[in-house]
Amino acid sequence: MAGTDRTPVTVIGLGLMGQALASAFVAAGHPTTVWNRSADKAAAVVEQGAVLADTPAEAVAASELLVVCLLDNDAVHAVLDPVAGSLAGRVVANLTSGSSDQARENAAWAEEVGFSYLDAAIMTVPAAVGAPESVVFYSGPREAYDRHGDTLRLLGGGTTHLGEDHALSALYDVSLLGVMWGTLNSFLQGAALLSTAEVKAADFLPLALRWIDTVKLFATDYAAQIDRKDGAFPANDATMEVHLGAVQHLLHESEAQGVNAELPRFVHGLMERTVAEGFGQNSYASMSELFRTPRK
Amino acid sequence: MAGTDRTPVTVIGLGLMGQALASAFVAAGHPTTVWNRSADKAAAVVEQGAVLADTPAEAVAASELLVVCLLDNDAVHAVLDPVAGSLAGRVVANLTSGSSDQARENAAWAEEVGFSYLDAAIMTVPAAVGAPESVVFYSGPREAYDRHGDTLRLLGGGTTHLGEDHALSALYDVSLLGVMWGTLNSFLQGAALLSTAEVKAADFLPLALRWIDTVKLFATDYAAQIDRKDGAFPANDATMEVHLGAVQHLLHESEAQGVNAELPRFVHGLMERTVAEGFGQNSYASMSELFRTPRK
Ligand SMILES: NC(=O)c1ccc[n+]([C@@H]2O[C@H](COP(=O)([O-])OP(=O)(O)OC[C@H]3O[C@@H](n4cnc5c(N)ncnc54)[C@H](OP(=O)(O)O)[C@@H]3O)[C@@H](O)[C@H]2O)c1
Ligand SMILES: NC(=O)c1ccc[n+]([C@@H]2O[C@H](COP(=O)([O-])OP(=O)(O)OC[C@H]3O[C@@H](n4cnc5c(N)ncnc54)[C@H](OP(=O)(O)O)[C@@H]3O)[C@@H](O)[C@H]2O)c1
Repeated sequence: MAGTDRTPVTVIGLGLMGQALASAFVAAGHPTTVWNRSADKAAAVVEQGAVLADTPAEAVAASELLVVCLLDNDAVHAVLDPVAGSLAGRVVANLTSGSSDQARENAAWAEEVGFSYLDAAIMTVPAAVGAPESVVFYSGPREAYDRHGDTLRLLGGGTTHLGEDHALSALYDVSLLGVMWGTLNSFLQGAALLSTAEVKAADFLPLALRWIDTVKLFATDYAAQIDRKDGAFPANDATMEVHLGAVQHLLHESEAQGVNAELPRFVHGLMERTVAEGFGQNSYASMSELFRTPRK
Repeated sequence: MAGTDRTPVTVIGLGLMGQALASAFVAAGHPTTVWNRSADKAAAVVEQGAVLADTPAEAVAASELLVVCLLDNDAVHAVLDPVAGSLAGRVVANLTSGSSDQARENAAWAEEVGFSYLDAAIMTVPAAVGAPESVVFYSGPREAYDRHGDTLRLLGGGTTHLGEDHALSALYDVSLLGVMWGTLNSFLQGAALLSTAEVKAADFLPLALRWIDTVKLFATDYAAQIDRKDGAFPANDATMEVHLGAVQHLLHESEAQGVNAELPRFVHGLMERTVAEGFGQNSYASMSELFRTPRK
């Protein structure tokens, strides 16, 4: 059998995602041990060559590298707390979705018990696990990540170690999802507005995609302005006054054409406050002040 | 002198943008006549080879193609109403920002007077006029656009005729600006959240830009779903229930890390309503129903 020289890996949790993870390890020739609360979900990966452990303790004992992918953080503790003693010295890569606070709590627990903890976030769907463009984020001890990097990178070509702070995976996860919703919502707003003039979303699409590439250039300039932290925000392209005037047009058009105007009104409100704070002659990056501070 | 075989063009309005437009025509060898309320702003383009008309009437008489770029629609009428009679038979390309209602009103006026009216939207800054990537939108009679397409395309390589409906330029303009604000706001939200873990915006940037390319693929799928108009919205990637769960994480993280949570809360509210409308098992494209309908 190919791959008996590969690092053994244990996958705990065989939901939709866990099965995809286990499959990827088996396919690459890693001796793969699996465990799931409902044993029947192991059938497909056992068929492919994985070994089903009878208990979590047996699953943990089989490999130094444990990949955990369960419903949520409660499920992780339900399974691992009873076998915590045997985790010592191992690497636990937790691919279960959770908050940054949970990640830091788990890291403190790992410190106490004596295992290496990597918190992870999977930025793709089960069907795309292992694809070159699929991204999985890890945060936590760099040394543990490097030791198992070759194995972990099997799950996606875009696998990235974000840093030692365990909170990073969860924070990047929701931040990027936020960018997705922000872009999609405004695309749907535009599609709604244009549909009043019988424009198809498919006709709006290519112009929107091309424009998004331009927006990426603006974001690049603004990222540098934010990091400068001198509060200068030079308006190299357009001032907040100009943006405010333009968003008034978007609001007006949305109202006049009879589509939902809540999103334009919300965004207009944010810009109005930023201008009122004295940023009228600054760039759009000056809006970062508002996003950094909870509303009083 | 080169270009005496080129179509004469008249530029009315020599603000920051009008001067850039006139320069581009002069540089390409078009006999260019200009007029501005404050004549002193003509100095630079006259130096380059433009001819300054003494009156709007003289400016109109000089060319079949009139490019108008003034502060707003009121300024356009202040200048053109007194000379309306002499517009008959000409092509007026109005590059002044305005609403789709104003565009349709101007088109009706053109019909009455007997000239061809093209409404336009400039998607760039004066310094980038004429660049290959610069976009100018036109809407109105295709025939008039085609007749002067070679001249109009001098203003930007991305010059596009959107359709015969005069409203289109203004609607595309604000729709694309909306996509810009939507993307940038959510980027700034993410940068704020990540700054609580000492992550620089410049470190978030490359991952966000890469992720935006993935979001473009989602938008492509959703555009097709919207146009199908069968209300099916199949969840090929993730269901609205899954999105709602994830946006709760973004909201929670924003509150827990002490950054502004207004944008996550707003987006969460939109998703909650879409799920409540029965789209829990549908794709994110089902949010289009909400954007199409004014809130009751
Ligand atoms: N699916 C995706 O597209 C996707 C994408 C990114 C991230 N994720 C994350 O990956 C994780 C797993 O997702 P999934 O799609 O695989 O979910 P799933 O199909 O619902 O699987 C859930 C898994 O958790 C187990 N589980 C739940 N409660 C448990 C408990 N108290 N004790 C022991 N095991 C328990 C289930 O065991 P049983 O089989 O016995 O019920 C099952 O193995 C989630 O955190 C999800 O957010 C998923
Ligand atoms: N600048 C940009 O980046 C940009 C980008 C896209 C679109 N646009 C649009 O292009 C248009 C012009 O912008 P701009 O940057 O050139 O503005 P600007 O520099 O402020 O110039 C305004 C022009 O309008 C004229 N004007 C104003 N009121 C008038 C009136 N009542 N009668 C006659 N003329 C009048 C001004 O004449 P005086 O010189 O006599 O005051 C000047 O020529 C605007 O609709 C703007 O939204 C600009």
